[in-house]
Amino acid sequence: MFDYAHLEALVAVLRTGSFEQAARAIGVTPSAISQRIRLLEERVGSVLVVRGQPCTATETGQRLARHAEEVALLERSLGDDLAPTAGRGANPTIRIAVNADSLATWFIPAMAAVPDRLFDLVLDDQEHSAEWLRRGEVRAAVSGSAQPVQGCDGRPLGRLRYIATASPAFMRRWFPDGVTAQALSLAPALTFNAKDTLQARWSAAYVGDGIVPPTHWLPSSQAFVDAALAGIGWGLNPEHLAAGAIADGRLVPLLPDAPYDVPLHWHWSRSVAAALGSLNRAVLEAARQVLLPIGEA
Amino acid sequence: MFDYAHLEALVAVLRTGSFEQAARAIGVTPSAISQRIRLLEERVGSVLVVRGQPCTATETGQRLARHAEEVALLERSLGDDLAPTAGRGANPTIRIAVNADSLATWFIPAMAAVPDRLFDLVLDDQEHSAEWLRRGEVRAAVSGSAQPVQGCDGRPLGRLRYIATASPAFMRRWFPDGVTAQALSLAPALTFNAKDTLQARWSAAYVGDGIVPPTHWLPSSQAFVDAALAGIGWGLNPEHLAAGAIADGRLVPLLPDAPYDVPLHWHWSRSVAAALGSLNRAVLEAARQVLLPIGEA
Repeated sequence: MFDYAHLEALVAVLRTGSFEQAARAIGVTPSAISQRIRLLEERVGSVLVVRGQPCTATETGQRLARHAEEVALLERSLGDDLAPTAGRGANPTIRIAVNADSLATWFIPAMAAVPDRLFDLVLDDQEHSAEWLRRGEVRAAVSGSAQPVQGCDGRPLGRLRYIATASPAFMRRWFPDGVTAQALSLAPALTFNAKDTLQARWSAAYVGDGIVPPTHWLPSSQAFVDAALAGIGWGLNPEHLAAGAIADGRLVPLLPDAPYDVPLHWHWSRSVAAALGSLNRAVLEAARQVLLPIGEA
Repeated sequence: MFDYAHLEALVAVLRTGSFEQAARAIGVTPSAISQRIRLLEERVGSVLVVRGQPCTATETGQRLARHAEEVALLERSLGDDLAPTAGRGANPTIRIAVNADSLATWFIPAMAAVPDRLFDLVLDDQEHSAEWLRRGEVRAAVSGSAQPVQGCDGRPLGRLRYIATASPAFMRRWFPDGVTAQALSLAPALTFNAKDTLQARWSAAYVGDGIVPPTHWLPSSQAFVDAALAGIGWGLNPEHLAAGAIADGRLVPLLPDAPYDVPLHWHWSRSVAAALGSLNRAVLEAARQVLLPIGEA
């Protein structure tokens, strides 16, 4: 079997990005870290870490780090079974891909409900988060897709409801005669990043196909709301984040009764399912508090 | 000179990530986009776009896109000088590297003050944002460094003040006998990503060197505050974002009178300085509203 002190060094280097920080995290010298990585690389017969700022994993390094995390999670559930009340080692870290709007609206309470885990969150668009799981780089993912991921189980979480919003001044300036295709093709929109197609899908659903507005690029959920409030552009904001501002009139829906719902699903790796038990329950419960049920209009 | 319709196609492909979306943005067919990119690549003699999902730029592609953006900005200031009140083309897009905490605290009002620009924001740590400018991938940057960037001018913006905070329940559980080095090495911290050294620097300044706490990884400014409120970990939050929760007791400073200030500087490319005039003023003014003056204790 592997020397797990060596694998621990690998995980620490990849997580902190440097041999120095990994050494401090584990409480050994940087040269001990360096030696452990070198021994691992000799054993596996390939480079595991691309030395740089930050240090990153090769494909093989990624695979080995994933194995080490899975073993840590399995050891934790072993410890739960053997001696539920005994003192235990450090809490294992679980790496999860989450879309930014889930993190901004409902995911934090799920984390808070599982205090004996450390979370390493990777943010990506809900249409791309499952790829992280497919590549083995995370143990679980909040995804827009119901499609099963190999080696994983899944459950529907609910629909995250979006409202297309802008400030009252923005509405007066850009949509004096209503939200027409012509007006939408001139009014500055907000777009999260190149993967964000929500504004285009909302326009196609409610106004017309093929409208391409000028746009700001703004990769932050809260900044989307702040920029809409400041009158910089219009964009799809989670109802949960925009509700207060809509209620007091600082934000206005572009169209009445024109929500856009994104279904979300939770996928997790079967190889660590036992260790994930309490997290799965917490995620489903936290989602239920904010998301709308899937399957109801 | 270059055919700027071709360069426009290149910029659109790199910004939207696909030939199809670029075609819609410009209002031509995807095959027209494809032909323009190919003609550009033949003229320059090298590949400009790595075809993929999303499409990305080669180094030469990056350089050409930068040139196109600079020309668009120069044309805008030319238009301002020739016919300040005449109708003008689409607003030029300006790409800027900003640290996430600046976007969450003071940068949005600067954007709102310059309504005739579109913004393409790249988020990176304040210790790394100037590299984007150095590589020519952005026209301006909010950076933690005062060091001049070649071809750029710079001005100090002020100090962003951070407070190490946690929830009252977290304080009771993890720091019953005060914030000692021993307690800090056990209490779960929040870390933005591998580039985030704020928690380590605060610990070193106020408690002791070389403390490496267990940590969650959470790459969002607002999620940092939300996670602290939920009792998941302690972390350095911008005073501006945490002040309300500190005032009403939902967050507690780990130590009294222990702020951590990060100086921020604004750097911009001299090649587009004339076109940036109003933005520079807006950025300095917005920073002045929230940041503390540099040079005062």
